[in-house]
Amino acid sequence: MSASADDGAEALLGAPLTPRDVAIKDLGRALLPSPVARHLGDSALRYVGAADKVLLDDAVSAIRSDADAGERAAFELAGPRDRIFFDPRTVRVGIVTCGGLCPGLNNVVRGLVLELSYGYGVRHILGFRFGYEGLIARHGHVPVPLTPEVVAHIHHDGGTMLGSSRGEQDTGEVVDNLEANGIGILFVIGGDGTLRGALRLAAEVERRGLKISVVGIPKTIDNDIPFIDRSFGFVSAYSAAVDVIRSARVEATGAKDGIGLVKLMGRHSGFLACQAALASTEVDLVMIPEVPVSLADASSVYTHLSKILDRKGHAVIVVAEGAAQEQIGSPAGVPGTDKSGNAKLKDIGTFLRDRLGEHFAGRGREVTVKYIDPSYAIRSVPACPSDSIYCWNMARNAVHAAMAGNTETIIGRWHGRFVHVPMQLATRGRRQVDPSGDLWSSVIESTGQPRIFA
Amino acid sequence: MSASADDGAEALLGAPLTPRDVAIKDLGRALLPSPVARHLGDSALRYVGAADKVLLDDAVSAIRSDADAGERAAFELAGPRDRIFFDPRTVRVGIVTCGGLCPGLNNVVRGLVLELSYGYGVRHILGFRFGYEGLIARHGHVPVPLTPEVVAHIHHDGGTMLGSSRGEQDTGEVVDNLEANGIGILFVIGGDGTLRGALRLAAEVERRGLKISVVGIPKTIDNDIPFIDRSFGFVSAYSAAVDVIRSARVEATGAKDGIGLVKLMGRHSGFLACQAALASTEVDLVMIPEVPVSLADASSVYTHLSKILDRKGHAVIVVAEGAAQEQIGSPAGVPGTDKSGNAKLKDIGTFLRDRLGEHFAGRGREVTVKYIDPSYAIRSVPACPSDSIYCWNMARNAVHAAMAGNTETIIGRWHGRFVHVPMQLATRGRRQVDPSGDLWSSVIESTGQPRIFA
Amino acid sequence: MSASADDGAEALLGAPLTPRDVAIKDLGRALLPSPVARHLGDSALRYVGAADKVLLDDAVSAIRSDADAGERAAFELAGPRDRIFFDPRTVRVGIVTCGGLCPGLNNVVRGLVLELSYGYGVRHILGFRFGYEGLIARHGHVPVPLTPEVVAHIHHDGGTMLGSSRGEQDTGEVVDNLEANGIGILFVIGGDGTLRGALRLAAEVERRGLKISVVGIPKTIDNDIPFIDRSFGFVSAYSAAVDVIRSARVEATGAKDGIGLVKLMGRHSGFLACQAALASTEVDLVMIPEVPVSLADASSVYTHLSKILDRKGHAVIVVAEGAAQEQIGSPAGVPGTDKSGNAKLKDIGTFLRDRLGEHFAGRGREVTVKYIDPSYAIRSVPACPSDSIYCWNMARNAVHAAMAGNTETIIGRWHGRFVHVPMQLATRGRRQVDPSGDLWSSVIESTGQPRIFA
Amino acid sequence: MSASADDGAEALLGAPLTPRDVAIKDLGRALLPSPVARHLGDSALRYVGAADKVLLDDAVSAIRSDADAGERAAFELAGPRDRIFFDPRTVRVGIVTCGGLCPGLNNVVRGLVLELSYGYGVRHILGFRFGYEGLIARHGHVPVPLTPEVVAHIHHDGGTMLGSSRGEQDTGEVVDNLEANGIGILFVIGGDGTLRGALRLAAEVERRGLKISVVGIPKTIDNDIPFIDRSFGFVSAYSAAVDVIRSARVEATGAKDGIGLVKLMGRHSGFLACQAALASTEVDLVMIPEVPVSLADASSVYTHLSKILDRKGHAVIVVAEGAAQEQIGSPAGVPGTDKSGNAKLKDIGTFLRDRLGEHFAGRGREVTVKYIDPSYAIRSVPACPSDSIYCWNMARNAVHAAMAGNTETIIGRWHGRFVHVPMQLATRGRRQVDPSGDLWSSVIESTGQPRIFA
Repeated sequence: MSASADDGAEALLGAPLTPRDVAIKDLGRALLPSPVARHLGDSALRYVGAADKVLLDDAVSAIRSDADAGERAAFELAGPRDRIFFDPRTVRVGIVTCGGLCPGLNNVVRGLVLELSYGYGVRHILGFRFGYEGLIARHGHVPVPLTPEVVAHIHHDGGTMLGSSRGEQDTGEVVDNLEANGIGILFVIGGDGTLRGALRLAAEVERRGLKISVVGIPKTIDNDIPFIDRSFGFVSAYSAAVDVIRSARVEATGAKDGIGLVKLMGRHSGFLACQAALASTEVDLVMIPEVPVSLADASSVYTHLSKILDRKGHAVIVVAEGAAQEQIGSPAGVPGTDKSGNAKLKDIGTFLRDRLGEHFAGRGREVTVKYIDPSYAIRSVPACPSDSIYCWNMARNAVHAAMAGNTETIIGRWHGRFVHVPMQLATRGRRQVDPSGDLWSSVIESTGQPRIFA
Repeated sequence: MSASADDGAEALLGAPLTPRDVAIKDLGRALLPSPVARHLGDSALRYVGAADKVLLDDAVSAIRSDADAGERAAFELAGPRDRIFFDPRTVRVGIVTCGGLCPGLNNVVRGLVLELSYGYGVRHILGFRFGYEGLIARHGHVPVPLTPEVVAHIHHDGGTMLGSSRGEQDTGEVVDNLEANGIGILFVIGGDGTLRGALRLAAEVERRGLKISVVGIPKTIDNDIPFIDRSFGFVSAYSAAVDVIRSARVEATGAKDGIGLVKLMGRHSGFLACQAALASTEVDLVMIPEVPVSLADASSVYTHLSKILDRKGHAVIVVAEGAAQEQIGSPAGVPGTDKSGNAKLKDIGTFLRDRLGEHFAGRGREVTVKYIDPSYAIRSVPACPSDSIYCWNMARNAVHAAMAGNTETIIGRWHGRFVHVPMQLATRGRRQVDPSGDLWSSVIESTGQPRIFA
Repeated sequence: MSASADDGAEALLGAPLTPRDVAIKDLGRALLPSPVARHLGDSALRYVGAADKVLLDDAVSAIRSDADAGERAAFELAGPRDRIFFDPRTVRVGIVTCGGLCPGLNNVVRGLVLELSYGYGVRHILGFRFGYEGLIARHGHVPVPLTPEVVAHIHHDGGTMLGSSRGEQDTGEVVDNLEANGIGILFVIGGDGTLRGALRLAAEVERRGLKISVVGIPKTIDNDIPFIDRSFGFVSAYSAAVDVIRSARVEATGAKDGIGLVKLMGRHSGFLACQAALASTEVDLVMIPEVPVSLADASSVYTHLSKILDRKGHAVIVVAEGAAQEQIGSPAGVPGTDKSGNAKLKDIGTFLRDRLGEHFAGRGREVTVKYIDPSYAIRSVPACPSDSIYCWNMARNAVHAAMAGNTETIIGRWHGRFVHVPMQLATRGRRQVDPSGDLWSSVIESTGQPRIFA
Repeated sequence: MSASADDGAEALLGAPLTPRDVAIKDLGRALLPSPVARHLGDSALRYVGAADKVLLDDAVSAIRSDADAGERAAFELAGPRDRIFFDPRTVRVGIVTCGGLCPGLNNVVRGLVLELSYGYGVRHILGFRFGYEGLIARHGHVPVPLTPEVVAHIHHDGGTMLGSSRGEQDTGEVVDNLEANGIGILFVIGGDGTLRGALRLAAEVERRGLKISVVGIPKTIDNDIPFIDRSFGFVSAYSAAVDVIRSARVEATGAKDGIGLVKLMGRHSGFLACQAALASTEVDLVMIPEVPVSLADASSVYTHLSKILDRKGHAVIVVAEGAAQEQIGSPAGVPGTDKSGNAKLKDIGTFLRDRLGEHFAGRGREVTVKYIDPSYAIRSVPACPSDSIYCWNMARNAVHAAMAGNTETIIGRWHGRFVHVPMQLATRGRRQVDPSGDLWSSVIESTGQPRIFA
């Protein structure tokens, strides 16, 4: 798939798995006319038809080599349907935000509430507090009734008005609670752990024969969920990182042989590090999980840095938190996992800070390393204008999907358009930076670093 | 083409015209190996092949209905080629910026210079001053030699370090100058008028049998050039507009029945007005050229505003400069054209400011209209982080295209990827907001205004 | 008063008028112990004593030359008093914001409400809507009950949550309304016209023998009210102007012989123009009302600009709206006055834009003037952090003054400390930039322009 | 000195020590006429006379109680003198920046160079690199010749273009270097350690009978140098801290019983913590070195926090780095001193983070503490507009002082005016927040916390 700009997503699609749109089982019997055009006084509104699908691979070569065009892998286009499954007057909707903060969470919550209220006339929307924990009745968190008034201004603030938490909860208890609250649609905003949890909820819902739609809005500040080329909040995040990198550069220039070192989010995927470095234009070295790197004394990392220090008198490094993990000497105890089930990473930031000092000291060069770990400063910003629009559209499409009876679905983005991506596909792997692709090329041209460290 | 998110572009492609890639005539005889991989120390670099094309229409339905897949309309993918036409050691390159300011101009100039210098080893780059005017020898503007050092920090500033001007110049004189300077590649950064001028240059070049590549980087703060779903600087522009709209809202709330009125760029296309309104979330009414509107007293515009004033006590309007032109009573003299050949618009901003006051006064309601025309404040901002990346990639791809011998080509963007778009196609019409498409739907949901004014 | 940094204030104090602190007439009989220390759980709180006064002139030379040190002019220090006049449990307080918008209005309103509520335990606070107009009962504007909850977040927004209006209202009607609402304290936030109105209110209050305290918080984006060296919102305003000047500079550099022209507020005083130019560091010429300027063809203004254009290729001008009024040819009709009673100014901005073009055209130089009038963009910004603190302290001191029974008083600032300034003194003239003082020196060093235009 | 708003400065002035202006010894013989008025084409310029002094105490009560007004403590007013000591055509000037970064360093360097060049016509200015280290010849750092062109744009960047370093250098070697370079004036920009070093330099200069003026521009992000009520960069620093506090608040609201904890600079003085908290308006608890605090389980800190958590569900704490040092259990090794000779502090941030968790866990309340240490992000920002002006004026006055032959002097600010403060006085102690003064009152009213922790 040479024509793709979407590093890392396409490799996940094995031969047998093509996108399969998932809808509530007995959908056929209950389809109602959509009220959207009427509510919006919009007779010209164009509904999306079932045949509106976007090819997974749109390279001309792919078309040629494929005998049966009709069987080609494709995603259902997102958007309003002319027939919907849930009755807006009676359906009860739940919203929950899970995992770490990410810019735009409040925008998505607000968008869901506005589209449900104004587009469809839905009247019962509950915000569950503090992630999946708020869906466990015995924890006693009272859900917040959400109305357009309640959410009107929340997007001016970062974070999530619902609160969040990490970690799984008992699937049965959660579905009990959904039943007890009469929930027909549950919007789950969260990362891959959260979406896997949502899949289990959907399975339990199906097992019990319930008609509850579970729709995910993928949240990943690492931008690593497949089939969504831009996760919400990602632009805000790398934009905020630019300011941090500027700080690091200023600090670096303030000292003789100063090195500014910034650790950014990115457990397995270096998108944030790459885009922040590109946007900043002030970075001399980027390290990401996808490109192995040696920190042995003779390695090219140090050679590159020496040249930079010789030429400019200072250097700036951006390292993704998941980079160079294999280079960090194992401490006695193996790192465990956090509440979200993610393996705890060894800290490349402090390791590198110390290692750089040692390396250059061993060569008679006293460098001054200024290390910044800006995690909270980045994830807590309000959505930038671009993300503000993006979250709004993602939320609208999630509402359209759910009202039409889709379930086990997330809203993805493929070749510039919003599409329905089966939740199973979206949780199957992760997007990564392709070490021989254009994004990484762009980074190495910007930094002047070698493409492959040896 | 129901699956397209790209309002307005597809309608331009008539049956006979499919994208045709344009290259310098006797390209075949002179192809050199590309030095990019070598210069970047990047053996893994993936060059783009001639067959890497992106379908114009990637809806499944389009594929099915088309017998001969091979003849399908498609764009050449942008990116580095393994064989190039110009010898980097000897080629002389010119860069010129034309027309009104737009965020990111300096980023594009910087990107061109860096990619030419570091990617290809080009040594002779001239920046022509003040638009096409600087290409006329007798005007005496001395071109600026451009090196990585000269352009290193220019992107922190808005505007263009080269200066700009509007208007045509004599094609013959310009080509004389290109010959005199030994220019092999001319990068033209400008809008549709500028690109039409570039087409004429290319024609004259061909007539004279010269081997000069003319490559365009389309600049349009209105985002209305076809086959480029996002023009550089556009995100920066609508982000800056959000602050202006906030001012208007604050002013509106400061007075009884206050109305904040913001006029934004958009002669024929309302993209900037739409996206700024969406990003702001504080707008009650958007008026764009694509959606006709009556300003007669009984019209729905006033009804909508009255309701807003009743409910909130104030209202915010965003109007594109080209909206409602037919509603403005002709003054004695017909407006002429500006230097770029654009028809001068009648001023909807001041007209609407006065008309609103009159209308409501006639109904016993004294409104206070605060009118803001922020044109300079928006177009002069530095590129936001997202545009910083975008300009960098657009410039890199323009260099790849030119070095490989493409001419009469602009860098476009189709379905999320950079592509080569024949200049003739790009100047053939304009993108517009589809009044029954998703963008306008999104706006009317956000503002609550009627989709069609009557 | 050679040691003063406060251009323009000292000249206002004629021989007979020394500051006279004004308090409600029969203050002596009714003094209650202040609850502030108790409410704040703050036994260490230091109350301000009556003898805490700040010298008007603190130059050593002034002390020497003065026989009777005790009679020296001085201001009462602002701050909490240990005895107060109004009973916090029963007093009813009104707040009104008048005139044009200014950054920090919401901060002041919030500060008043918080200090009244938490510091003193006041329970009845009314916000009158839309300036003095809201104090006229027959206009039917319902006042807003103000509580800490209502005002908690208003300061994140520019403007005033109460709305504002210009112009006088009938003094008798206003006092009727105050009586009808049982108001004991009225906080008036406004400029010199507003404060003169407040003086009339206070006179009528005294005539009727009422015990209503009228305390002013001076608002002037021109920073021209005497005995207050920094008006609230002024720092925010000139900070916002810096961005506008940057736009003008970018526009100027984008054209051959480009001139960026920014008109800033400043009817009679050029403080905003001066400080904005200093903060920006990008201005080549500042014109203020205090320094007469000739725009005849041979004048030094043009000579200076010509040199700048020759050297840099562009120039940036900041002009205060009240500058060079005498240079603008009278149109047929004489400008009248606006609702606030201010004489309408002739528009120096558009005049200068046209005049510059004509002048240079007459000398064969085609300049491009980009003119920006950013009034709304500047006055509508939220308070910057520095003003946020400043407004909070100004509001606290206004509450302390009013609760202690002061009336006809504004909160001023003298030599770095908050003081009580009699309203009569504050409305007696205006601060102006001293053409031979340090501020103007600083400007001419920064711009390189001549100190006096001839 | 009850009338003073300047917490902490006045207590430093013991009976015997009144300000004593220091000038180069044989000043009388060599006074030249100042060229400033001539250079600025400014015949109206007002020079400052020797008698222009500002009273240390300007309270009326102070005047009354003092028999001999003439002997009253007072500061020499800063500003241009009509006679100067150094010959601008020949004097050689050095500039050095020392210690940690602080916003505005580049503005001060730029201001010095511009005033020296344009105001006085000085032609030889050297910037020494990396603090006092750059003044030691054998380290081989080449000084940078500074001209108006070199410094034109440096203020758009944070940090210092000269670089900096901590720590003392051999006084003799430094003075050797000054002699070798023929330096007549040395501007030292740094904190109290740096200024003590400068005093030693001045003593050595005097011992050798040299005519070198040593003038300090006090730099302290803690704002704790006496007799300067606002250190340059301080407004920029607390403004930047507001954003960090917002992040902490967003993080705190994102979790159940979330606590946002921000550690700010302030080794011995809590000004930054106080002003940042006031400007932010979102802080529930401020801890500063001047107010002792118990962290024992029953202490009022926890009681206050519990109430906040009960009421709001989250809390925000700002702690100055020097607060509560006595509460941190001594680790085995005693902390030493850093290169600047400052005692290393124990880390109250991480200590408090852990202690808060333990305390509440012990009471069955699981709090989530999000801890941010934003040091680099705050000190590396460019100067805000207000500091831009302030640095410019401070630099101008430093040049005036030095050219007139003052030495062992810093530029201070007293009651709103720039003054000459003897270096000995300025290094004699430090400004601190007065626990019973108005600033701390303002903080406790804003946070609702108890004034004194018990």
